[in-house]
Amino acid sequence: MRSDTLAIVGVGLIGGSLGLAARRRGLARRIVGVGRQQKSLDKAVAVGAVDEGFLDLVAAARQADVIVFCTPVDGIADQILAVAPHCKAGTLLTDAGSTKAEIVRAVEGRLPPGVVFVGSHPLAGSEKRGPEHADADLFQDRVTVVTPTPRTDRAAVARVTAFWQALGSHVRLLPPDEHDQALALTSHLPHLLAAVLANTLPPQLHELTATGFRDTTRVAAGDPALWSAIFLQNRMAMLDTVGLVQNHLTDLKRMLMTGDRAALDAFLTQAKRTRDALGN
Amino acid sequence: MRSDTLAIVGVGLIGGSLGLAARRRGLARRIVGVGRQQKSLDKAVAVGAVDEGFLDLVAAARQADVIVFCTPVDGIADQILAVAPHCKAGTLLTDAGSTKAEIVRAVEGRLPPGVVFVGSHPLAGSEKRGPEHADADLFQDRVTVVTPTPRTDRAAVARVTAFWQALGSHVRLLPPDEHDQALALTSHLPHLLAAVLANTLPPQLHELTATGFRDTTRVAAGDPALWSAIFLQNRMAMLDTVGLVQNHLTDLKRMLMTGDRAALDAFLTQAKRTRDALGN
Repeated sequence: MRSDTLAIVGVGLIGGSLGLAARRRGLARRIVGVGRQQKSLDKAVAVGAVDEGFLDLVAAARQADVIVFCTPVDGIADQILAVAPHCKAGTLLTDAGSTKAEIVRAVEGRLPPGVVFVGSHPLAGSEKRGPEHADADLFQDRVTVVTPTPRTDRAAVARVTAFWQALGSHVRLLPPDEHDQALALTSHLPHLLAAVLANTLPPQLHELTATGFRDTTRVAAGDPALWSAIFLQNRMAMLDTVGLVQNHLTDLKRMLMTGDRAALDAFLTQAKRTRDALGN
Repeated sequence: MRSDTLAIVGVGLIGGSLGLAARRRGLARRIVGVGRQQKSLDKAVAVGAVDEGFLDLVAAARQADVIVFCTPVDGIADQILAVAPHCKAGTLLTDAGSTKAEIVRAVEGRLPPGVVFVGSHPLAGSEKRGPEHADADLFQDRVTVVTPTPRTDRAAVARVTAFWQALGSHVRLLPPDEHDQALALTSHLPHLLAAVLANTLPPQLHELTATGFRDTTRVAAGDPALWSAIFLQNRMAMLDTVGLVQNHLTDLKRMLMTGDRAALDAFLTQAKRTRDALGN
């Protein structure tokens, strides 16, 4: 899986890390970055994530064999549709967005012949932002979900799989809807609950927080605009997961009101078992 | 604040850390530990947390000038009342329990003359257990809440304050009820939400979790029995905090259903502001 020119659209933490990782593993002869601000592009060049920065998406796309969109989820589909007519035949498009169903649905069947898109989502990230926090090992030993549909070209799925594997990722294939339902629980709900918890805390109690509060709310430091776009793209699955939480809270209130120690013990024991199984 | 014999009741992570910290800072000529299992006592001696282990609480208490109860919150008051008649005049009793109102209420006015109790809660801990994880710096630069009432002896409050300060803690004085209301938000609710989140995760999705899920659920690995005792001792304040969460979830569902991007952005921005203010 070696390409001539890899284009990375969006040179933030994910895009920057992708550039560093691809360079270190020799995945492309040349890596170009696309951004909206010259400053970010300059930083991405400075840290070695890309060889050259482009403000013009189409100009970069014309040169690329592989394009990875590492931009906010609510812009990815439009960007793909904008560049596809300008791509060389055989160009492979993929992305790193945290939601998949809306993006795949918006793109499928609307690309010119010879240009293919396969959705991806590397389960790696950070509450930090910007290419200055890029990490060449961000994808190492992480899972990347690749989301083909029955209409997706099989050879393109194999190319995308090989791409993420070459970066050190373990690839899992899931239909886009199943990805979104799974991630609603494993990623989007944790973010929502972390934000809820942060928003219950009045300023005068800041000094009475310890590591427990800080761990539990850490992801709430993430970029609000990125996350509200994710929540809205995945709103139906999010509503389901919030419903699960509401049911648990109703049960817990009853246990607290009636002093049902056995039920509380069982609830917390089940949670500990799950958490212990996840490791550090 | 130097004593002759310091007795630590409960030689787990907190008690063991207290022993190591007190020894390193020269807070007592001799440190004794009390436990229910010889094995834990042997470990506490082996790691240097205590000089000698006792299975008999009263035998250890008779020798002590200062006794710190580092046992589960639902046992502390009974232990205090059991040892108090056997203590020397001038013995200072305190604790490290995560709840304060029930303990203080159960003890106040029931101690023999010359024996004083002042409630304490060092905001330090870990999801790990046992003296083998003890850390001499556990209390360094952490807040310890000391919870006198109008009936608490002022000299005893000063002694307890000096004790925790000598271990490196910053001491805050709060009435027991205010402590419990604050900690319901800053510590007990994070634990409850972490457990709820862990309990929404089916086994087949374990591999699709990443650092966000792991951070947000980390505290759920704590000891279930310890935490259900804490929840029940603080149940009224816990019910209030669960109500706050339920209100936020109702609001968030409306934002998701109506696609209210501005409200979601505002919610997540407020959360980020709070989380950023807490530091790492």
